[in-house]
Parts: sequence; structure tokens; C-alpha cells
Amino acid sequence: MATEIAPHESYLPSPQLTPREGDLFNIDAGLTEEERAVRDSVRRFVDEKVLPIIGKHYVEGTFPKHLIAEMGELGVFGANLPEEYGCAGLNNVQYGLIMQELERGDSGIRSFASVQGALVMYPIYAFGSEEQKRHWLPKMATGEVIGCFGLTEPDYGSNPAGMITVAREQADGSWVLNGAKMWITNGSQAHVSVVWAKTVRHGETEVGDERTIRGFVVPTDTPGFRARDQKGKLSLRASDTSELILEDVKLPADAILPKSGGLKSPLMCLTQARYGISWGALGAAIACFEEAVSYSKNRVMFDKPIGAFQIQQVRLADMLTEIVKGQLLSLHLGRCKDLGTFTPQMVSLAKRNNVNIATDIAREARRLLGGNGILAEYASMRHMANLESVYTYEGTHDVHSLILGQAITGHSAFK
Amino acid sequence: MATEIAPHESYLPSPQLTPREGDLFNIDAGLTEEERAVRDSVRRFVDEKVLPIIGKHYVEGTFPKHLIAEMGELGVFGANLPEEYGCAGLNNVQYGLIMQELERGDSGIRSFASVQGALVMYPIYAFGSEEQKRHWLPKMATGEVIGCFGLTEPDYGSNPAGMITVAREQADGSWVLNGAKMWITNGSQAHVSVVWAKTVRHGETEVGDERTIRGFVVPTDTPGFRARDQKGKLSLRASDTSELILEDVKLPADAILPKSGGLKSPLMCLTQARYGISWGALGAAIACFEEAVSYSKNRVMFDKPIGAFQIQQVRLADMLTEIVKGQLLSLHLGRCKDLGTFTPQMVSLAKRNNVNIATDIAREARRLLGGNGILAEYASMRHMANLESVYTYEGTHDVHSLILGQAITGHSAFK
Amino acid sequence: MATEIAPHESYLPSPQLTPREGDLFNIDAGLTEEERAVRDSVRRFVDEKVLPIIGKHYVEGTFPKHLIAEMGELGVFGANLPEEYGCAGLNNVQYGLIMQELERGDSGIRSFASVQGALVMYPIYAFGSEEQKRHWLPKMATGEVIGCFGLTEPDYGSNPAGMITVAREQADGSWVLNGAKMWITNGSQAHVSVVWAKTVRHGETEVGDERTIRGFVVPTDTPGFRARDQKGKLSLRASDTSELILEDVKLPADAILPKSGGLKSPLMCLTQARYGISWGALGAAIACFEEAVSYSKNRVMFDKPIGAFQIQQVRLADMLTEIVKGQLLSLHLGRCKDLGTFTPQMVSLAKRNNVNIATDIAREARRLLGGNGILAEYASMRHMANLESVYTYEGTHDVHSLILGQAITGHSAFK
Amino acid sequence: MATEIAPHESYLPSPQLTPREGDLFNIDAGLTEEERAVRDSVRRFVDEKVLPIIGKHYVEGTFPKHLIAEMGELGVFGANLPEEYGCAGLNNVQYGLIMQELERGDSGIRSFASVQGALVMYPIYAFGSEEQKRHWLPKMATGEVIGCFGLTEPDYGSNPAGMITVAREQADGSWVLNGAKMWITNGSQAHVSVVWAKTVRHGETEVGDERTIRGFVVPTDTPGFRARDQKGKLSLRASDTSELILEDVKLPADAILPKSGGLKSPLMCLTQARYGISWGALGAAIACFEEAVSYSKNRVMFDKPIGAFQIQQVRLADMLTEIVKGQLLSLHLGRCKDLGTFTPQMVSLAKRNNVNIATDIAREARRLLGGNGILAEYASMRHMANLESVYTYEGTHDVHSLILGQAITGHSAFK
Repeated sequence: MATEIAPHESYLPSPQLTPREGDLFNIDAGLTEEERAVRDSVRRFVDEKVLPIIGKHYVEGTFPKHLIAEMGELGVFGANLPEEYGCAGLNNVQYGLIMQELERGDSGIRSFASVQGALVMYPIYAFGSEEQKRHWLPKMATGEVIGCFGLTEPDYGSNPAGMITVAREQADGSWVLNGAKMWITNGSQAHVSVVWAKTVRHGETEVGDERTIRGFVVPTDTPGFRARDQKGKLSLRASDTSELILEDVKLPADAILPKSGGLKSPLMCLTQARYGISWGALGAAIACFEEAVSYSKNRVMFDKPIGAFQIQQVRLADMLTEIVKGQLLSLHLGRCKDLGTFTPQMVSLAKRNNVNIATDIAREARRLLGGNGILAEYASMRHMANLESVYTYEGTHDVHSLILGQAITGHSAFK
Repeated sequence: MATEIAPHESYLPSPQLTPREGDLFNIDAGLTEEERAVRDSVRRFVDEKVLPIIGKHYVEGTFPKHLIAEMGELGVFGANLPEEYGCAGLNNVQYGLIMQELERGDSGIRSFASVQGALVMYPIYAFGSEEQKRHWLPKMATGEVIGCFGLTEPDYGSNPAGMITVAREQADGSWVLNGAKMWITNGSQAHVSVVWAKTVRHGETEVGDERTIRGFVVPTDTPGFRARDQKGKLSLRASDTSELILEDVKLPADAILPKSGGLKSPLMCLTQARYGISWGALGAAIACFEEAVSYSKNRVMFDKPIGAFQIQQVRLADMLTEIVKGQLLSLHLGRCKDLGTFTPQMVSLAKRNNVNIATDIAREARRLLGGNGILAEYASMRHMANLESVYTYEGTHDVHSLILGQAITGHSAFK
Repeated sequence: MATEIAPHESYLPSPQLTPREGDLFNIDAGLTEEERAVRDSVRRFVDEKVLPIIGKHYVEGTFPKHLIAEMGELGVFGANLPEEYGCAGLNNVQYGLIMQELERGDSGIRSFASVQGALVMYPIYAFGSEEQKRHWLPKMATGEVIGCFGLTEPDYGSNPAGMITVAREQADGSWVLNGAKMWITNGSQAHVSVVWAKTVRHGETEVGDERTIRGFVVPTDTPGFRARDQKGKLSLRASDTSELILEDVKLPADAILPKSGGLKSPLMCLTQARYGISWGALGAAIACFEEAVSYSKNRVMFDKPIGAFQIQQVRLADMLTEIVKGQLLSLHLGRCKDLGTFTPQMVSLAKRNNVNIATDIAREARRLLGGNGILAEYASMRHMANLESVYTYEGTHDVHSLILGQAITGHSAFK
Repeated sequence: MATEIAPHESYLPSPQLTPREGDLFNIDAGLTEEERAVRDSVRRFVDEKVLPIIGKHYVEGTFPKHLIAEMGELGVFGANLPEEYGCAGLNNVQYGLIMQELERGDSGIRSFASVQGALVMYPIYAFGSEEQKRHWLPKMATGEVIGCFGLTEPDYGSNPAGMITVAREQADGSWVLNGAKMWITNGSQAHVSVVWAKTVRHGETEVGDERTIRGFVVPTDTPGFRARDQKGKLSLRASDTSELILEDVKLPADAILPKSGGLKSPLMCLTQARYGISWGALGAAIACFEEAVSYSKNRVMFDKPIGAFQIQQVRLADMLTEIVKGQLLSLHLGRCKDLGTFTPQMVSLAKRNNVNIATDIAREARRLLGGNGILAEYASMRHMANLESVYTYEGTHDVHSLILGQAITGHSAFK
């Protein structure tokens, strides 16, 4: 049998670690001390600043804006982007752990950070000019500038190639944008929006196909740009969701992201965001699981803590198992992402699975809590409702099924 | 944020690896080259020697004995035990990968190896005298001597503490065993059996509790020892399963495993075996998944390969997702086992999950195959039937639920 | 073979009926024309009066009080009680169909009617004096008087035998009540409450066991009686839920329900209510299914209505199947209830199943709706949230599992 | 509210009935005494003649031919066809109950009866000449003549429109058949086969489309007709399954079924058979449930019957619930079938659901039985394996999903 040693001492958990209390599958053994430290600092922030106030914000339907500056200080925005642009320069596992901890607070908080980092800072970083990067990234890292991401359109939720928004190039090289975007997180509070549009070059008249799609950096105070909050949400209530309307929005020539090109560019952003969601959903699941465990130990019925009954033990064992598997998925994905050996299909698998199991865990936790489980003073039902948004956004569960199906069989079944 | 480096360069996948075809989540990135080499050599053996003949053996209800010697040469028996006793001295991940590949052939083949290695060689290694080790292990590593494990009793399948078999010490220090064991893999072809019994010391009359349990090495030609094959199995048909009857079986004083003591000792053996099962069940699942993928690409219905239909893509995506998660569970468990930071509860989680998802995958693969799926010339239904045994043995699914429930809540709900 | 004819021309669907559009399993064939007429009249009321306003009430957390009088006119309160007390005198299938249609509007609306009819009017009818019946029932049938039902206590949600509230008989035969009740639908708007308490007869000091439980009719303006709305509900938001506090509430001797006796009496009320819930949950499920079907036909993605894709067809087929089965359960139960051949265990089976499948259907409908599915202008997510309360109240899912388990095995596994 | 009385005293359960022991949802209340009598007589036959011998036949892979004559005497073959052709002239509920009881024995026994009655006798009855009916039906009713049904072809399992078998009309009006059929129950023991083929009229050369399909009555001793048993089945082992090969099979002009015309004709046969399967699968489920209940009461573990543990109670409660719902589905379907108000889509719903739940119930029953659950001396695993065939044949689960999806949405998603 082969005896060669792999270049890296591949996949060796820290030997000193016996499982931490509650870490029943010793997941920590797969993390470096540095990674655990990042996670723990965000965990403290969430415990101290988010959990005490999030229920009230959720019921009232408001985003807790006062947390933005502190999140910026913690370094959570665009945390895996380089320090030279004011970012934390962390690896992708650390970035993922941050998302996990934020969503342990609320999916709305994590969504804010995902949009800011993966959907606005990332494309500016990846597709922007050096000037754009220097201008926007440091202020976004601190939270001074808030961003939003304009891709989804009312009639093309799962099919961005069908985009209608158009950017027409003017004779002087400047641009005029028209269109509408929907389901835009942070839309009404953003200072800047990365808007995706089909571009029509000066002299052309026909709108082209998805290959003409380019990104634009649009300050939200540009005339013709409007955001309108979507009302009546029964999910992600501690998050702002808006429609964007662009009517003859005039932009200078340098508003375009120069290295963006084709639908592939926004899809690369989605891959970044989905990666973070795969971690974030686990945070929501962990919050529910921990709430359920605690409740099961304290709530007495028929003279025993309910955690001593078989039915609840099965429920909890199933929750734990799914969380652990989701953690190992995201961790493996993060390692591969750091090494450049990951694929969008791997991200689809992790996003689809982790959000799905989180919705089940939230529901089962809520049920274990009995009547109390419907109250905002507990977290499980809030997470259960939030996760329905997460299930649908950034590629619905079904869309990811078909992405995986195509990867497996070689056949597209979208149409 | 913290900057200290963890002692091991923990969990870094091999950077050069882009995913191998079919390895859609790049699991190979988590393995060393040496580990992949071990896996691939057993895979070849299974492809060449097991798959062509196993369906016939299954239908006829016979174990393919002619494979034993070659398995011995490959080093699969007790592969994680030291070379000084004639074993392969592999790490636990390599050991697990061997189990995976063997069960990709058939659960009966893997069961043979599990019993030989984890349930007979391991207790001799862990609890035996140096003499016992030197006598038995090398011949068992080659397959020259076949072993079986006598723990389970007819009325105490999930409750070994209720054991009835008794070993009474005689005045001269020798032993006399009486009792019956059931569901004994390899029982009728074994040369040696490790039998667990409650011991009654000379001079005592009362049978004690589970603390008196000790292991005995019993050559199967000892007078009073009989094995009787269990008939009418609809699962694990390519494996021998027997009842053992012990009537006044006289053993010398040195037949006892000197370091065994209490129920804990056989439970440690079960932990070894369950660890291997967690990998093995994945092998069965992989076999079914690969058969289903292949079938879905080739079987045409309504003018398309059925793999191009959404319903089958969802089925395949779900299978893949569960396999990948199971692999990461067992891999993490193996790493922790190598480092000594694993717990029996972790093994319970992995065994319970991996067997459970394998039963679902086998069923869904069979269904994707349509009418052909009921034939022994395909593998899926054979695996589906086999896995029901695996679901039940070495701790039923329910028992592992309660082990996990106890770990989570601190309360026992067994009774 | 036997040739005798059964006394009733048992179970013959109306022969003229081809399935109505949307009634894909021809459930209507199992209903009389009279029953369909009752259903259709309540359906119209819900379509015209409830659906246009319920989303707003839900978001704002208010019960639509203006509907009470019209519901009274329609005869929905205590509809299966006799006409001599001002009620509609309908059979139990008609009663069930009313519950179905009301909950097609909202679980909060149906809950109001369930409490009024099954939990307040029913016990007054079943356990009350003729005077009590004549005094309360006609005004409750019209909705002029609103009732609530005080059984559940903070620490004994699933174990009413553990009740703490006590009614102490005074020397003059009058009563003094002390205690607290929780999760009381209609609590803050009720004029009258049926409160259950352990009774201590004059001269006794010790509080007895569940056999001493009796019901009391308590006008809510009695001094010492207070109701406090429970805040922060994320479910049943268009319904009032309160805590009741009873501090030295003095009641005359004739406040007791004379024929009530022991825990069995409130359990009989729960059986009535659960029967209605089994129908009601189907109404919520039907609302979600119909919304999903309609959406699937109109929402275009990848150039087809999404209802033309296999994934959505499977989703819809599963929903339909579960609804149809639930309808047949409740219908059979209603027939048996009319004939006096039903058991509480049958009600447990139907309540448990129908609520459970409704929660799944609501969730899947929401998911089919994509992003729109989180908005209150659609019904599915509102139902999804509501049904979590319904899953928990009137015997949680788990409690009904154990009721059925006991009926099947003869063993109690509650403790 | 409406007061008109429905024409039939629709859906009134027999009032005298309190639930029979084990009939926990009082399903018997929905049956006439005559219907219960038919069921009970077949139940006795199965208890006395089938259960004692079926395990052995299953293991050995043989059909118990000695039962055929007695089944004929009992009147189970074509039991819903008229007495004038020697049949029992029962209603469709009685017919369904017979299928339920036969499959309580084994799916192979019920399959034999389904093929004989619904797939051979029915098309002769529905599409045959008076002469054909008088010739074949009485002998088939007694079992003297055994039939098989040749529709399915190797490459068109779920798409019979793709049929390749051709019947070419000769100048003298006689026919020559060529082709192959697969998965033919009773194929090797049949005396007569109803074979479906695309017909090419004398003078034509091109094979037409599905509108040319006609049925032929083919005595199996006709030269050129061969049947070959399919080997290696891991399901339906107590049933013969064959391939048919037709090489220049010459048939007289009157071998054609005169009223058959187009694919619709064999599909009508499938609807008959599927109706019976919907009942039959319940029989298998009932057998497993009853075995599990009995085992749960007798098997002691940790000092209690396992039926006293919550985990097993949940398992049993779920089984019971699904069986009861399936029974109500089939009963309602049978009532509508008797009245002529049923549709093929209703049959799809019931077949799909009932087989599906039966596969789950069989699996869970097997699991409850622990190690014993893999033995042929118990019934559950045999049923579990059998039901996989039933899941696939007569329209796979997936095909019925799409039939329902089309009924719901109006869109075909087969291609």
C-alpha cells in the first residue's frame, strides 16, 4: 500500500481536545484555535447585544440599526476580504463561523452582513477598479456606508437570465438605467447599490442576452432611484426588504464595474453569499437546538423533565445529528474554498441542505416548547419563520435540487 | 482577533485536488494519498472479485468462502491493529475506508470482516494475554482462523446486561460455560469464538450482575459447543448467521481474556464494530447511488434518459447529499479516533445516521430502477434488504437514539 | 355469503354526482345536499367577509370583532346544539364543515367559534342546569355573549390532572376561587368564563385529586377576575389569547355546573373541540392548497407555469392526497359521532393527523409561492404559523400519539 | 339553511356498531353486514390456508398452486363480474375487501387474483364477444383456466404507447403476432393470455400509433408462444413472473377482442387492477401492523413489553393512522365505483397512497421486530420486499404523481 505522505497533514483534529460541553461530536476539533477565537468573539456580541433586543425588533418589524457600527468594529463585514481595504482578512472558515454566530441571533442580522459583504463588497472587490475599491470598501467594512444588491426582478426570481433592467450607454460614455428590482435586503437604508442590468452600447437599439449583463455602483441618492419597503412580511421581520425602482437613473461612465461581464458575475456573488448562508442557517439551527435542550431539561411534565421522555429524546437526537452533519459540510466547503478547490455545485449542496435541516430543526424545537414555542420571547418560532425566507432566497431549494441533478446526471431539467 | 496557530495544520484538504469525477463534494480532498491508495486497492478487489459473484451467493444463501484468503492477503482483517501481530497497522480512516469498500460489495462481506477484526481480533488484542495475542492474531489476520463473537442472547438483544450465559469457575481454576447466543455472524464456520459470560467464582453460588462479565476464547471444537445456522433469512443472505449453544463447555483457566472486566469490555468491542459499520453503510449507499446514476443516464423513457426528469434529479440530489454528509461524519470520527478524542456517543451518532440514510438511499435507488430494481442482477434491492439487518444489529436505531438523548439531556430514557 | 341488508343503506354516495371542479376525489359524493348547502353558505361568508380583511388583522394582532354578530346570524356558534336553546340543531358533519370553512379563513376565527361552541356552550348544555342553559345559550348562539374556557394552567399544559386552581365552598354554599389559567382564547373579550377548579367542600381543608374537579360559570366582571393578554405571539395573531387570574373570586352556589364531575367533564369538552379542530385544520390546508394551485397555474418561470414542472406537481399531488384522506377521516368520525359510536381515541387520531398534515401542506404551499409566500397578502404563511398553535393546543401531537399508543398496546407510556 | 334530503341516506354508518377489537377507527361501521361477511370468509381462508405455508413458498420462490381451486370456490376470481358468467356478482367494496384479505396473506397471492380477474377476465368481459365470454369466464372463475396479461414491454415499462409488439392481419382475416412482453405475472402457468398489440390491417405496411392497439385472446399452447420465468427476484418470490416471446404466433380472426380499441382499452384494465391494488396494499399493511402490535405486547426488553415504550407507541400510532386513512380512501373509491362516479385519477390517488404507506408500514413493523424481523417466519419483511414490486407495477409511484399533477394543474409533465 502507498506510503507517501500528503503535502498537508490533512484533516487532523487538534489532539488535545476532548469535546467541549454541548459539542457532542467534537466539531471544535476541526477548528484552529484562531478560528474558535473569532467565533467566540462574535458569539459574545450576539449573546450580549442581539439576543436581548431582537425579539422586540422582530415583533415591531424593525432592523436594529444601532448594531451596525459595532458589527463593523468586530470586523464582520467582508471579513474574508484583504486588510488593505480595511477588511479583516480572515479565512473562509472564520468568515463562515461569523455568519453562523450572527444568524444564531437572527437571520435578518446575518442577511444584513451577507448583503454588505458578499453581495456588495465582494463584487466591488472582484469586479471593481482600484479606485472603486479604495473608495467604497473601507467605509463599508466599518458600516459607515451600507450597501444593497439589485439583481432579482419581480417576474424572474429564479431565472436571472430573464432580466429586464437595462443600462443604455450614452454618447458620452455615461449610462442611463431603467428597471425594477425586488426582495432587496437593506434596500431602503442603503447608501449604495450594486445594480445589475443588461447593457446596450451606444449605437445599438436591441437589448441583448445575458452576456451583456454588467454591474453598476449606484449611490442611492442618485435622481430616479427609489426604494420602497415591502410590507406585510411574516418572516425576516427584523430586516428591511424593499423594491427598487430605477427611472432614468443617470450614472457616470465609471459607475460600471469594469471587470464584471455577463450573468456569471452576479452568479459569482451569489456563490459567495450562499456559502455564508450555509453557515448562517446552522447558527439558526443551533439557537433552536440549544433552546430546546435547555427547555427540555427545565420543563417538568408528569413529574419529569420532558427531556427524560423518549419522544423528546428522539427529537433532540435528530436535531443534533443534522446540525453536526451540516457543520461538517460547511467546514469541508470552507477548507476547499480556501484552497480554491470548491465548486458552485458544492455550495448548492451545502446551502440547500443546511437551510432545509434548519427549517426542520426550528419547527421541531418550537414544538418541543409547547405553547411557549409561539412566543417571541423564545427564539425558535422566529427562526422557523425567518428560515422560510432563507429557504427561498439565493436559489430556492428546488433550484439547487436541479443544479445538483444536472451535476449528477449531466442533464439540465430546469425547463 | 487571535493569531495563534493551532498545533496541527488542522483540517487542510490537499490543495492540488480538483474533485474527481463522481466525487461531487470533493471528499477526496479530506484524505491523504495513502488513504486513497488503500481504498482504491480494496475497491479493485470488490469490483473484480465480489461484484461478479455476490448476487448468486445472495440468492442461494451462501457466504463466498473462497474470498477469505484473498481478503487476508489484502490486509483487511484487523487492519488497524499493529504489524507486530501480523496486522496492517493502518490508521482508523484507512480501516474505515476498507469497511466502506467491502460493504460496497455486500453487507455480508463487510460483516465478516467486522466480526473477524473488531469483535474477535480487537478483544484478543485489547483484553488478551501476550500469549493469546501471539497465538491467535497472526492466523486471524490471514483468514486462516475464522472467529465469531458471542454476546447477544435470545431474550436480551438490546440489553446485554441481562445476560444469562454463565461461566462457573472450578476448583482447579478451569471454567465451565453454559448458555445460548443468537444472531452470531460466522457462527457455523468459525474456528474460535469470543464468548461473553457472567462469571461465578469458585465457592460462590449466586450469579452476579453485569460487573462479573468476562470474555473467553473458545475453540469451536470444544465439546459442548454447537452452532446451528438460522434459516429463512431475508437479509444478509450472503452471510452465515447462527445460534450458539454452550452445554457444559469446559475451558482451561487461560481461556479467559485476562484484561476483560465487566460489561464495559464487550461494549468497547461494539464501539469498534460500530465505527466500522458507520463507514460500511456508506459503501452500500454508494453502490446504490452509483447504480442509480448509471441507470438514470441509460434508461430512456418518454424519449429522454430518466435522469433528465426533475423527479429523478431530486431523488439523486437527496441521495448524494446524504452520502456526502455521512462520509464527513465518519471521516471526522476517524480523525478523532486516531487522536483519542472520540466518544462512544459519537460512534452512536454516526452508526445511527449512516445506516439510516443508507436504508433510504437503497430504497430510492431500487425505486428509480423500476421493475429491474427487484432483480438480484442489480445491487440496490440486495443492499436494501441487507441494511435492515445493519439497522438492527450493533445497537438498533432506537437504542442509539436513546444513547444520544441521554448524552444531550443527561437523562436516561431506556426504561 | 351473507345477504342481509344493513339497516342503513350505508355509505352510499349520491349517485348523480360527478366530481365538482377541484373536488378531485369526489368528496362531495359523501355529503348530503343539505350538508353541502351549510358548507357553501359559510364558505361565502368567509370569502366575502373574512378573506379581504384577515391579513391586516393578523399583521396588526387584532381579532376582527365586527364579524361576531354575523357569525351568530349564520348559526355557527354551538351549531350542533338544539334549536330549543337558540342553536342551529345541525348534525355533526354540518358542524364540522362549518369549522372547516371558518378555518379556511383563519385558525383564529375558527378558534373563536370552537371556544364559544365546544368549550363554553357545550359544557353549559351538557353539565348545566336548565336555568343555566336558558340563561346563557341563546345569547351565546347569537354572539351577544362571548365565552372563554379556563382549564389550562401554566405548569400543567399537557397534564390537567395537576390542576392547582381551587374552589373552596363557604359555609353558605357559595364558592371562592383562586388560581391562574393560561392560553385562554377569547380571554380578554369574554363576558363569561367556564372555569375548572378542584373543589374543597366546606369543612375540608386538603385539596383532593382530579375527581374533585368541577366547572363554574364565572361572569368576567366578577371582582377578583382579571384577564391579561399574552403578548408577542407569532401565531394566531388574529385571536386574543390571555392569562386569567382569579383572586378570591366569590361565586354564588348556583355558579357550579351541577352535572360536571371530575376531570372527565372538561375532557369531554376537549373531545368536542378536538372534533371540530380535525375539520378546521383541513380548512386551513384547503386554503393553502387552493392558493398553491392557483399560483402554480399563473406564475411563469422558464417560460412555463410552474405547475407544469414535475417538482411542483409532486408537491401538489402530495398535498391533495393528504387533504382527501383527512376529509374522509373527519367525515367518518362525524358519521360515527352522530350515531354515538365514536370514541375519544378516534378524535385523537383525526386531530393529530389532520393538524399535522395541515402544517406540512401550509409549509409546502408557502414554498411553492417562493418569495411571495412570506407576505401576508397571501394566506399560506399565516396558516403555517397559525397551525403551530393548533398543533400544540387541545392535546399536543405527542400527547395524542400516546393516547393512540395506549389504545393500541394497552400500555400507558405517559410517564 | 337547506333542508332537502339527499336521495340516498348517504354515508350513514351502521348505528349498532361499537368498534370491534382492533378496529380502532370503527372502519367496520362503514361496511354492510354482507360486506363484512365476504371479508371474513376470505380472511379465514387466508388464516387457515395461506399463512401457514406462504413463508416457505416465498423462500423457495414458488407459487402455491394448490390454492387456486379453493380460491375459485371462494369466488375471488373476477368477483365483481356477473353471476351469469359464473362469477360472484359482488359489489366493488366486496371485491376490494377480498383483495385486502388476499394480500394480507401475500402480495403474490393477490397479484394472481388481480391478474386473473382484473386483467384477463375483465377485458374478456368488457371487450369480448358473447362467445368469448361464455367460453372463458366460467372456467376462469373456478380457476380451471389461468390467465395472464401481456401489455408491458421491456423498453416501455411506464409508456405503453411505445409498444412494439405487432399483430399483422392476413389476407384471410387471421392474425400473426410478433413481439415480447415482460414482467408477466402468471406467465409460465397460464393457459390463456390477453396480449395487446399494434394492429396492421391487411394491405397496410406501416405500424400505426397507439390508436391501433387491440387485445387478443391467445391460448398459451399456440405455436410460437413461449414464456420464460424471470430469475433472481428479491420480491414477489411466491409468484411467477415471466417474459413472453411471440414469434409468428398465428391466431384465427376471432381471437381479437372485438370491442377493444386503442390504448384506452388496456388502460381500462389497469384501472380495474389498480383499484384492487389500492385495497390489497392495505392488506399487507394490516398484516404488518397486527404482527407489530402482537410483538410489541409480547416482547419484553428492559423489563417491559416494548409496546409500553414511547418510541414504539409513536411507530404504532403512525402505522394505524395511515392504515385507517387508506381504508377510507379505498372505501370511498369503491362506493363511487359502484355508482359510476369515479375517475381513473381517483384510482391513481388511492393506488399511489396506499402502496406507499404500506411500504413504510412494512418497514417500520420489521424494525419494531428487531432481529426477528429479518426472518421469513415473520411476515413483515416479506411484505416489505413484496411491496416494492407493487410500488412499481401498474403505474409506478412517480407516474401516478404526474397523473395527479396533471389533474390538478391541467398541465402534462410526463415529458
